[in-house]
Amino acid sequence: MRLRQRISMGCVFMVVSASIALGQTRGKAEDALLAADVAWEKVYAAKDLAKAVAFCGEHGSMLVPNAPIATGKEALTKAIASDFAQGNTTWHPNKVGVARSGELGYTSGTTDLTFKDPSGKTVTSKGNYLTVWKKVDGSWRVLFDSFNFE
Amino acid sequence: MRLRQRISMGCVFMVVSASIALGQTRGKAEDALLAADVAWEKVYAAKDLAKAVAFCGEHGSMLVPNAPIATGKEALTKAIASDFAQGNTTWHPNKVGVARSGELGYTSGTTDLTFKDPSGKTVTSKGNYLTVWKKVDGSWRVLFDSFNFE
Repeated sequence: MRLRQRISMGCVFMVVSASIALGQTRGKAEDALLAADVAWEKVYAAKDLAKAVAFCGEHGSMLVPNAPIATGKEALTKAIASDFAQGNTTWHPNKVGVARSGELGYTSGTTDLTFKDPSGKTVTSKGNYLTVWKKVDGSWRVLFDSFNFE
Repeated sequence: MRLRQRISMGCVFMVVSASIALGQTRGKAEDALLAADVAWEKVYAAKDLAKAVAFCGEHGSMLVPNAPIATGKEALTKAIASDFAQGNTTWHPNKVGVARSGELGYTSGTTDLTFKDPSGKTVTSKGNYLTVWKKVDGSWRVLFDSFNFE
């Protein structure tokens, strides 16, 4: 019983720590959405175009700096391929939220674009992103993704 | 009875037309969020700093191009004041969505920033925006606002 209590306390501590790290209250729904964000980042950072596009909803949109808004799979494929060609993108979520009804949510955090400038020097642009997600047939899909650089 | 039917049909037609204009299904919740977006644009375009900031939640964030993320009333006040100083901002929503539970939603659309370039010529930068809203004490408040220019 004491051991079980200790394990429970340990779990509570871990959950509280994770919540503090993200600066907000998190439950299972938020954890699942965060996992989707992290999984999308993994295939995006690996420049796997097909898998990166597959995370987006049928009518998803990307708001890319210095480009028209991209809506729908064809436009998203072009926008993501163009992003891959520019350099290496990574991101880290620091906010997550899911509606009580469970089908709409958001993630937000920091993003880095590392590329070679015209002189051949490696440069990293630091920015921020905001993604709106919708659950489609049980899976989180990107409805909107917006980012800009500092 | 026939008149009531005609009025009902007229209302249905109007709602359907509005839905088609926004390219999606809309209900009362979406209309209320759209009204909040339009009301925010009105005070923002009029450069009413106090009213523009009042639309933002206590822990709201703005993702502004070429600037660090602004979170919280103080940072938002500075970010919005800086935006007002740059030129005249207007926007028009073309997408809206509200979670079934009614407390989380988004709006998205086009935004224009009109300003004078160094030569004194009036220039308009065209862009896109994405706003995540949360209902606080019955009122829609901005949780995240992100925009960038084409």
